[in-house]
Amino acid sequence: MKKKITVIKVGGKIVEESESLQSLLDRFAAIEGHKVLIHGGGRSATRIAGKLGIESRMVDGRRITDAATLEVVTMVYGGLVNKNIVAGLQARGINALGLTGADCNVLRAHKRQATEVDWGFVGDVDSADGAMLAKLIDEGIVPIMAPLTHDGKGNLLNTNADTIASETAKALAPYFDVTLTYCFEHPGVMRRPDDATSLIPLIDSNSYRELLADGTISGGMIPKIDNAFAALAGGVSRVIITKADAIDGQSGTHIIA
Amino acid sequence: MKKKITVIKVGGKIVEESESLQSLLDRFAAIEGHKVLIHGGGRSATRIAGKLGIESRMVDGRRITDAATLEVVTMVYGGLVNKNIVAGLQARGINALGLTGADCNVLRAHKRQATEVDWGFVGDVDSADGAMLAKLIDEGIVPIMAPLTHDGKGNLLNTNADTIASETAKALAPYFDVTLTYCFEHPGVMRRPDDATSLIPLIDSNSYRELLADGTISGGMIPKIDNAFAALAGGVSRVIITKADAIDGQSGTHIIA
Repeated sequence: MKKKITVIKVGGKIVEESESLQSLLDRFAAIEGHKVLIHGGGRSATRIAGKLGIESRMVDGRRITDAATLEVVTMVYGGLVNKNIVAGLQARGINALGLTGADCNVLRAHKRQATEVDWGFVGDVDSADGAMLAKLIDEGIVPIMAPLTHDGKGNLLNTNADTIASETAKALAPYFDVTLTYCFEHPGVMRRPDDATSLIPLIDSNSYRELLADGTISGGMIPKIDNAFAALAGGVSRVIITKADAIDGQSGTHIIA
Repeated sequence: MKKKITVIKVGGKIVEESESLQSLLDRFAAIEGHKVLIHGGGRSATRIAGKLGIESRMVDGRRITDAATLEVVTMVYGGLVNKNIVAGLQARGINALGLTGADCNVLRAHKRQATEVDWGFVGDVDSADGAMLAKLIDEGIVPIMAPLTHDGKGNLLNTNADTIASETAKALAPYFDVTLTYCFEHPGVMRRPDDATSLIPLIDSNSYRELLADGTISGGMIPKIDNAFAALAGGVSRVIITKADAIDGQSGTHIIA
């Protein structure tokens, strides 16, 4: 039987405020067994870019990454946010190792081609090295991954953290029984967004079809759940959508094949 | 017989200008066998700090590191400089891994006590984990180390890159036959600074005593060579002082016990 691993993606807001970061790190440290953390950092990037006189241009919530912005996200994601998480986890006895996709070549990507939008130095993932990550994890190391990849030609690329999480989870699936947890602002997938008691605890492909048909799941939740099923198709055992204060593996909406 | 490893420390200037960085990476990639690179980044830190409206205060060439400055050096050393080196080496087929002292807990330090000068978040190294580094290196990984340590309580600390180099070299000595190479602006230790033909190719403890007695070695060179002998006493096989364009292991001044 494969050993369990938990791959958790947290957004920027949680890791960028000292108080919420500390309680996240407490909860992350308490998770038993192997684990990986993928983090964002967009608010800090916008803040530092602003101070440096660099305008943050977003399209559909994603950052246009020109050369100056790439410098900022390299500093903020790979340095400031990542290394503070690593130091905070080391203080909790977790042997954290901060990684971008360039480190140990774990995430290779290509620069997204300009269409209507020229995204600049934004990378779409080509491959994740699950064998290398598994080797590090087997040594007791806990990878902390910044949302940066590289193209193998010397260029770092800004890459969506959700994508890094799913690619990492899939790459680890041959070696581990993988739970992929996405943290977001709600306790999970809700039947009625404003009703905390309406959490849907379990979704499988059959119930997903029904929830789509009756309109319970709509809008921005559809791509999230489609991505979850893509991860399951890629070998991930289960995907959990939950709040950052409930990453115990029991809470939230569990999505299974 | 132990396997050979080369631990190279390069200053900020070389890694902060694109042209000199690219040729350094070419030369570093060409070094045979196991290797480690320790880099600075002070000029970039000063530049970014300046843009952010943070004054860089130096005493004896060392940076006073208040909380705002610690953010800057974490971004610049751990992010911008380190990750660009890593991506550049990956493009050359070198399996580079960027590390601060917090990553895998490789370099533990304590905050320097304020005396006449309050250095702020500056760390003096307590321990380097040679076993962990050796394990990574045995996997074919090439550590690229930023001049940052941590205190095990969640704080990153700004730490002199020369010290990180010597502590890393000593920590690796039980596992490898270690050559520690310091790059600086001259081809090595010179009898006459302005005479390129006056390089001293070899210094041992006997000849060092003579060179000190006759005044050939004086001033700022004395602590450098004292540090080299301290590394030798700590198990390092040889220390080389050379120029960054001559890190082939043959050039420069070789210091042996």
